[in-house]
Amino acid sequence: MYERKGLEDILRDARQSFYRTQVLKPREKNAVLLRLSLLLQKEKDLVRHENQKEYTKALEKGLDPALCDRLLLTENRYAQMIQGLHDVASLPDPVGRSVDRWTNADGLLIEKVRVPLGVVGVIYESRPNVTVEVFSLCLKAGCAVVLRGGSEALSSNQILVNMIKQALSEEGIPEGAASFLPWPDRQAVVDLLSMNGLDVVIPRGGAGLMKLVNEHARVPVLKHDQGICHIYVGASADPEKALAVVVNAKTSRPSTCNAMETLLVHSSHRQALLPKIVDALREKEVLVYGCPETRKLGEGILPASPDTYRTEFLSLALNIRQVGSLDEALMHIREYGSGHTEAIVTRDLEEADRFQLEVDSSCVMVNASTRLHDGFAFGLGAEVGISTSRVHARGTMGLPELTTTKYLVRGDGHLRKP
Amino acid sequence: MYERKGLEDILRDARQSFYRTQVLKPREKNAVLLRLSLLLQKEKDLVRHENQKEYTKALEKGLDPALCDRLLLTENRYAQMIQGLHDVASLPDPVGRSVDRWTNADGLLIEKVRVPLGVVGVIYESRPNVTVEVFSLCLKAGCAVVLRGGSEALSSNQILVNMIKQALSEEGIPEGAASFLPWPDRQAVVDLLSMNGLDVVIPRGGAGLMKLVNEHARVPVLKHDQGICHIYVGASADPEKALAVVVNAKTSRPSTCNAMETLLVHSSHRQALLPKIVDALREKEVLVYGCPETRKLGEGILPASPDTYRTEFLSLALNIRQVGSLDEALMHIREYGSGHTEAIVTRDLEEADRFQLEVDSSCVMVNASTRLHDGFAFGLGAEVGISTSRVHARGTMGLPELTTTKYLVRGDGHLRKP
Repeated sequence: MYERKGLEDILRDARQSFYRTQVLKPREKNAVLLRLSLLLQKEKDLVRHENQKEYTKALEKGLDPALCDRLLLTENRYAQMIQGLHDVASLPDPVGRSVDRWTNADGLLIEKVRVPLGVVGVIYESRPNVTVEVFSLCLKAGCAVVLRGGSEALSSNQILVNMIKQALSEEGIPEGAASFLPWPDRQAVVDLLSMNGLDVVIPRGGAGLMKLVNEHARVPVLKHDQGICHIYVGASADPEKALAVVVNAKTSRPSTCNAMETLLVHSSHRQALLPKIVDALREKEVLVYGCPETRKLGEGILPASPDTYRTEFLSLALNIRQVGSLDEALMHIREYGSGHTEAIVTRDLEEADRFQLEVDSSCVMVNASTRLHDGFAFGLGAEVGISTSRVHARGTMGLPELTTTKYLVRGDGHLRKP
Repeated sequence: MYERKGLEDILRDARQSFYRTQVLKPREKNAVLLRLSLLLQKEKDLVRHENQKEYTKALEKGLDPALCDRLLLTENRYAQMIQGLHDVASLPDPVGRSVDRWTNADGLLIEKVRVPLGVVGVIYESRPNVTVEVFSLCLKAGCAVVLRGGSEALSSNQILVNMIKQALSEEGIPEGAASFLPWPDRQAVVDLLSMNGLDVVIPRGGAGLMKLVNEHARVPVLKHDQGICHIYVGASADPEKALAVVVNAKTSRPSTCNAMETLLVHSSHRQALLPKIVDALREKEVLVYGCPETRKLGEGILPASPDTYRTEFLSLALNIRQVGSLDEALMHIREYGSGHTEAIVTRDLEEADRFQLEVDSSCVMVNASTRLHDGFAFGLGAEVGISTSRVHARGTMGLPELTTTKYLVRGDGHLRKP
């Protein structure tokens, strides 16, 4: 049974624990991560057994199969979760790192260094491996974390959080450094967003969660909102590369936010390249919505509309629209894009430069699949997600984005002159 | 008469203008600033005459004298306002500047560059020179700005904004790049905070404004909240430097957020240094609130209390509390500080290091006056203010903090591998 008092206790505890996590040495933080990996290894059968029960229950309840699938800790996902802890432990520690250092005209030494962001709230959906992933990144960044997972994964998350708390405690760190909201109640999320206990909240999820956040958040928000990603295939595009990039961006993992949702194609490709692209996509069972010109290419292309242009399909479906120029493509993206990730396929330097200058998205690519916008693909290591906020963190968000900065100033009796 | 429709028009216009300001070349932006400086020079008598009338009206109304003083554009302030435009024009342009650049394992080129933050709302109080200052910084950062000044400065601000619009227009830039809310109504601020038109809002002001922001803001906020700044004089402090730093931090300009409000002194200074400090402060007509031990130093020291420890005096008043150790000082700052600026005066290296590590404020100083936490004093040039937010910008906030970033990625048909 949710009670406001319970949440207040969790937040107070997290704040107290943050006084400790913010000054932990890298070795202390890594020790927790490695200890947790051992615990997860040791208790694998227990965790997977509980998770399997919860998965079966979700199936029986008739929940969305894609959601059920994400809930399941397969052998492979379990191993990756453990490996992820080692990966995060081996990343460079972001805390204390100098961002800039200089002296002013009077010799006052000023240094800007990274410090932990604070008590971080993360609201996410069904995947229980996120629990371990997000905890590991937050701890590494010296933050205390308050987690709220999907109700369908409640018992899987609970068992994982217990092991996290055990690992913290065995390393002499307050368990409040990681806490979990055990209540499925919507009111618990509303209170988490509106009480004054978090320094920042990171919501990862669909439109319903975003609506709740927009209505109730009183604390700073780093949104991980929808990705309505576009690829524009310009007149000069290399046809083979265009085909490969488009198919990869749509089909390599359509449920992710960096998958392409709308393909814009210069109309000069109407007769040669575009039919090939449509065939390749339909061979992969992609449902095609097309503009009137595109629908002439064959049977079974559904009509695209402003509604479908605004849809994040997250599935094997896309819009195709033919445009007469780069300007038309830019106008479409400005009208319907969500500022996540856009790409152009072109051999024309001027076109590439204009696209990168004028498209105002967190990531703007030339001749590459939108699916590559990702912390791992970029070589940065694990990510918290892809931020669609403009403030603080934009695009793939990793360890440095879980920090803020502090000025360290050293003088020798320096005074402000009038 | 305020109508919601009027604000909607302003915000739509600002958004449209931002499409243009975000791609302006440095030369185009600087041309506007220099043109504005010429206009201000030319129309000085007109502007100062209007401002003088408004100042007189404010005095007659019996408004707070400090507020009236801030409203006045003296000869010197007017000249500084013009000089400020030249200073901002000569700062390096932050837009397009590379933050990082690397290739991933497959040779995908990734660059992270600064781009304008967006449509920025700034809510401020009586000083009309802020109108020109904030506009110049926002334009230089490629942002469109929506300004809302104090009602007592309405006609001064209006005349300045008209000149800003003229300068924009004469340089062929949409006037919507700078707009001003001409309504004194509180509801206009509430709507500005809660409509979906700004990318970020920067409130600079007192407790009343912060309360309004906390209640109504639906857009990201970069707070410029109160500064309850502390100085701790450690046992090993050089007495002369301690005296000079303390007097400077309290009296050089007490109305600013980086002025000291509470002095913590190691009790070993009870007999020699502290009486000297108290005398020097009282000579400057500073009102002293003291802890019981401090009150024993003489007549006329008022009792300090948790209430006075939580007060941002912004005037010639301060708390003095004696503590037995660095730990006690740290506890006091954790309890009563606002995370703005703290300083220690010490000769003890370990104490200095601990203070800088453990105090979680936007700026932590050793042997320097808190008044030095400022963009100009740091040598960074003009500042928007001092952010007390943890996200996005913390501490003195200048041009780079008016930008966000975008990833520019260049490939050669790069795909995401499974």
